[in-house]
Amino acid sequence: MPFTKSFASDNNAPVHPAVFQAMLEANRGDVIAYGDDRYTREAHKKFREAFGTDVRVFFVFNGTGANVAALSQLTRPYHAVICADTAHIQHDECGAPEKFTGCKVHVLPTTDGKIKAEQIKPLMHSVGFQHHAQPRVISITQATEMGTVYTREEIMDIARFAHSNELYLHMDGARIANAAAALGIGFRELVTDTGVDVLSFGGTKNGIMLGEAVVFLNSRLAREFEYVRKQSMQLASKMRYISAQFTALFTNDLWLQNATHANQMAQLLAEKVREIPQVKITQPVEINGVFAIIPKEAIKKLQEKYFFYVWDETRSEVRWMTSFATTEKDVENFVQALKESL
Amino acid sequence: MPFTKSFASDNNAPVHPAVFQAMLEANRGDVIAYGDDRYTREAHKKFREAFGTDVRVFFVFNGTGANVAALSQLTRPYHAVICADTAHIQHDECGAPEKFTGCKVHVLPTTDGKIKAEQIKPLMHSVGFQHHAQPRVISITQATEMGTVYTREEIMDIARFAHSNELYLHMDGARIANAAAALGIGFRELVTDTGVDVLSFGGTKNGIMLGEAVVFLNSRLAREFEYVRKQSMQLASKMRYISAQFTALFTNDLWLQNATHANQMAQLLAEKVREIPQVKITQPVEINGVFAIIPKEAIKKLQEKYFFYVWDETRSEVRWMTSFATTEKDVENFVQALKESL
Amino acid sequence: MPFTKSFASDNNAPVHPAVFQAMLEANRGDVIAYGDDRYTREAHKKFREAFGTDVRVFFVFNGTGANVAALSQLTRPYHAVICADTAHIQHDECGAPEKFTGCKVHVLPTTDGKIKAEQIKPLMHSVGFQHHAQPRVISITQATEMGTVYTREEIMDIARFAHSNELYLHMDGARIANAAAALGIGFRELVTDTGVDVLSFGGTKNGIMLGEAVVFLNSRLAREFEYVRKQSMQLASKMRYISAQFTALFTNDLWLQNATHANQMAQLLAEKVREIPQVKITQPVEINGVFAIIPKEAIKKLQEKYFFYVWDETRSEVRWMTSFATTEKDVENFVQALKESL
Amino acid sequence: MPFTKSFASDNNAPVHPAVFQAMLEANRGDVIAYGDDRYTREAHKKFREAFGTDVRVFFVFNGTGANVAALSQLTRPYHAVICADTAHIQHDECGAPEKFTGCKVHVLPTTDGKIKAEQIKPLMHSVGFQHHAQPRVISITQATEMGTVYTREEIMDIARFAHSNELYLHMDGARIANAAAALGIGFRELVTDTGVDVLSFGGTKNGIMLGEAVVFLNSRLAREFEYVRKQSMQLASKMRYISAQFTALFTNDLWLQNATHANQMAQLLAEKVREIPQVKITQPVEINGVFAIIPKEAIKKLQEKYFFYVWDETRSEVRWMTSFATTEKDVENFVQALKESL
Repeated sequence: MPFTKSFASDNNAPVHPAVFQAMLEANRGDVIAYGDDRYTREAHKKFREAFGTDVRVFFVFNGTGANVAALSQLTRPYHAVICADTAHIQHDECGAPEKFTGCKVHVLPTTDGKIKAEQIKPLMHSVGFQHHAQPRVISITQATEMGTVYTREEIMDIARFAHSNELYLHMDGARIANAAAALGIGFRELVTDTGVDVLSFGGTKNGIMLGEAVVFLNSRLAREFEYVRKQSMQLASKMRYISAQFTALFTNDLWLQNATHANQMAQLLAEKVREIPQVKITQPVEINGVFAIIPKEAIKKLQEKYFFYVWDETRSEVRWMTSFATTEKDVENFVQALKESL
Repeated sequence: MPFTKSFASDNNAPVHPAVFQAMLEANRGDVIAYGDDRYTREAHKKFREAFGTDVRVFFVFNGTGANVAALSQLTRPYHAVICADTAHIQHDECGAPEKFTGCKVHVLPTTDGKIKAEQIKPLMHSVGFQHHAQPRVISITQATEMGTVYTREEIMDIARFAHSNELYLHMDGARIANAAAALGIGFRELVTDTGVDVLSFGGTKNGIMLGEAVVFLNSRLAREFEYVRKQSMQLASKMRYISAQFTALFTNDLWLQNATHANQMAQLLAEKVREIPQVKITQPVEINGVFAIIPKEAIKKLQEKYFFYVWDETRSEVRWMTSFATTEKDVENFVQALKESL
Repeated sequence: MPFTKSFASDNNAPVHPAVFQAMLEANRGDVIAYGDDRYTREAHKKFREAFGTDVRVFFVFNGTGANVAALSQLTRPYHAVICADTAHIQHDECGAPEKFTGCKVHVLPTTDGKIKAEQIKPLMHSVGFQHHAQPRVISITQATEMGTVYTREEIMDIARFAHSNELYLHMDGARIANAAAALGIGFRELVTDTGVDVLSFGGTKNGIMLGEAVVFLNSRLAREFEYVRKQSMQLASKMRYISAQFTALFTNDLWLQNATHANQMAQLLAEKVREIPQVKITQPVEINGVFAIIPKEAIKKLQEKYFFYVWDETRSEVRWMTSFATTEKDVENFVQALKESL
Repeated sequence: MPFTKSFASDNNAPVHPAVFQAMLEANRGDVIAYGDDRYTREAHKKFREAFGTDVRVFFVFNGTGANVAALSQLTRPYHAVICADTAHIQHDECGAPEKFTGCKVHVLPTTDGKIKAEQIKPLMHSVGFQHHAQPRVISITQATEMGTVYTREEIMDIARFAHSNELYLHMDGARIANAAAALGIGFRELVTDTGVDVLSFGGTKNGIMLGEAVVFLNSRLAREFEYVRKQSMQLASKMRYISAQFTALFTNDLWLQNATHANQMAQLLAEKVREIPQVKITQPVEINGVFAIIPKEAIKKLQEKYFFYVWDETRSEVRWMTSFATTEKDVENFVQALKESL
């Protein structure tokens, strides 16, 4: 392959050295499997420090697993889950939410990946009508799949709507670190205090190797979740290696360093491509992604050197992602290649 | 906890250094996610070398995921899966096979974890009767959960029965390496040539960190399996780190070294405890586990120093597992502690 | 409630006397259960006469059961089903399709309940991409939930698109008789010859008591469907009483008489309310339903005398349905009451 | 077919004239669909009179539907359901319970179809262990599939065990009327007062055409069950015709007359075949069925005249069922034919 740097996704990046080091340090002797070990206890402690003492944390394998197990916990199969049309649970999980929860997924149209309480209201006409799936969970993605970020007020607005209608609020936080870095606040302010009920906390896109956490902001909601995790095929036997990675993320605010850097690289990229007349940025650049429309022929040429996704073929819109491992030089080289392809 | 060595399970062991090294070497620069990378291609090649050119391999996260996704591929929900009453899919997956495949699981009684074609025959009366779940898959575990090993002839016998009745043969190979080492044959002779259709190839119990492979011995059976893997929440984004581990296992026959050593440590343990009159070994010691009946009070005392599972409380039967990381000294210390607890 | 005639739904109507008579005639002595009886064989023969010799017919209990079992037969859980946003499978089955098939349901916006091949094209971008549910079935409703009817050309257009993209075409025919009557053609021309793969043939809304038929227009697609029917809890033991009703429907073209009459009563109703200035008919009146916007206060008053559904509260739009049992006098009385409520 | 009377099953019988009459009387004018009608209210009242005022009743289509919807209401997918190996939910529902509830079904061996609390105890070792499906429901069949009847004490024993272990007790009452008639007690004594939580109340085998009732003996357990019924495809639109049948069953104790007669005919049959030396009755004849071992060749000859099921081919055991419609003459003719076949 000709390229050494991908702008396709933050999961094309390697593992941060400090994360690797933490796994190595956990690689000593025997410990009990399935999470009854000191590494897992330590990681759980880190989460409580970050989110509050009443949280309960369960490590799983990946984002789809975290989302599906979380939604399964909050629903019965005759419920409906409400999300944006751009949501990962709707678009990128091959129907796993429907298959495993049995629930209907209602999608709301958005331009920037963010939904509003106002949009959900008409769906509430279904409540109490036995022919209709009953709304039970609103799922929002923070930061969104479109690279945008919900403000605290926007989240609180949706949470208020949810709770006054007996709905739960789930947050898909595959890029929660990027969102927190962008807003300049901690997880407690961003998640616990805004009224989120359950969070899928992502690490893979922020420098770890593999692992995701289902975080219940209210321990009562976690009742019997260990069985849901197991039955959803998300229970790791050598759990300590997932746990150690999360501890690393929370040590010296590595999560924040990684996310801040990735976000900055996207800003740099946006800044540079804004100067190119044939490129039109289509979304606010709030985290580590740049969405842009570029000429069709340029896409083809640029992809010979760099792998990235075409987001919307009809509009000739592409998505470029940066990561903790992207350097300024990488951005410069990429912009150079982009210019040459035009 | 006071112990540094567990005899509870081979998944209490750490990761073999060579496996860790392979992951470290894969930690360079960006590669495409979800398996379209050179590390994954190399690992697939290793599997083809070991099993034959027509195999197709899909990496997943864990054994439950491998079993469930494999069974899901082979069935429709009105089918039945047939297995031993000791099978992991029946006993230790919290109902994941039923939940995800929708199939009925028919269990056959065994004393040693091994089923026989003869036992399956009566279930075939259901074929063609619309009120009954239709038998479609026989699932055997090699080596079994009871530490025993099917001979090649026994597998071929079941495979013949399966194929002459339009059934598939699935093998849960969580300890396939231990079985191959015990029989002194390779995977091709043990799996491909005996008529197995799909194998869950386990690595975690043989020295890797995390990862399992679904191996279709006939590429035709793998059609569209990528979607089953994704929908069963088993697709890793940073796939290279799972792939690199499997490549390490197949390099310099590390799988064989690890399994042979673990098996030998169980032999050593069995040899030593056989001399103790209050201990009665209950299963043939064919791989890396020893099942034994010991006095109830001794269990309690010994568990203060070593963690292990009570297999059958009513019989006061325990299970002791060794691993690639168990040393002769570990065995001696354990036997010493056992003697003291009697 | 004071009313004796409902304009709420064609399933508020009683059972046609000829249908009742057929059940009574089947009530003689013992016959084998589950469909191995002469009444069921006769009903199957009627379907073959109406649809063609290669059809295979399975009776089930209701429309949701027919739709879900049919879709289950055509899909695996990682597939997607595509339908109009107004479709019964999307809107009125409490998530049963998702729960039982495991599939994602993709909805297309419509104003008249009819979808077009053109709308489906963008969804085909998902084909071959492992993260996305794979489109497999297009489901259309004939006549639609909005009281409109697909022309033969429109159906053939969708069928062509489906088959050239390896999709199946399912038709929800809860009101298939009304559609055939409206178009003045038989079932063979309307269904078999237009390329429909599987039909949910509805009887309950056309004068029978209870029962629906899953009709495979190509016998090859019906393979093992008896198990799907049983597992979807849709197999009647005293099948003869469902079968006898369908035979009655096909005797002396009762289905056509009933549907024609119901359609005519809707025409009469439409004609009369068109003269009322405060009433605005919102959909073409093609079968036995009239959709109209009327003042909010009038709805309330009229519902004191007649039960019917408010279709869209925000628009103050109502739905009035007629049936085989609606008389001209019923329509006149209803219009009179409507006028009084204005 | 040569036979006019079947001894295969009580569902080979026709519909009792009084039940038909009740449906005919309900066939007047329009009523609201889906159960909001006076016929359904009346039927519910009858159930409250028979079972107690706190019951809640939901009509469904058939026994499999009743069982599956009831179990679905009581469980989450990581739970296990415990039943006899002869249970309909295990043996005759094509895996519908697993498919729809997602639960594991644990079977207990029996000779007479009746399980004991004692047998369930070992399964309780799984409680709290995340790898195991968690026991949640005990399901017993009254009368059993083997024609035997639980005494009140036996039921209370199981109920006590269930409730002291946080389990629910479900009763599959496909032949509940035969059991009550055999014991000479009412439904309140047999079901409500013994501690049953949910009952599948069968009517089809006792003279109705089609329909089953899910009866929650405690209204609190019925919360949101209307959605489970709908999503399990068990909601009838023209509900009145199911309701009217149940009202008929409860009018003039028709259920008791029918069941008593059917039971007596089985007694008569048993009495007569006991005199035949080549016939060996294998189960106590407590309701309307006779299980017997007869010579293999006799089976074949007798089946030329009468349809019935071979229960256990290896033992040459057959099942003969009587119904409300079986006459003494029918029994005599059958015994005559049996003798001729020997």
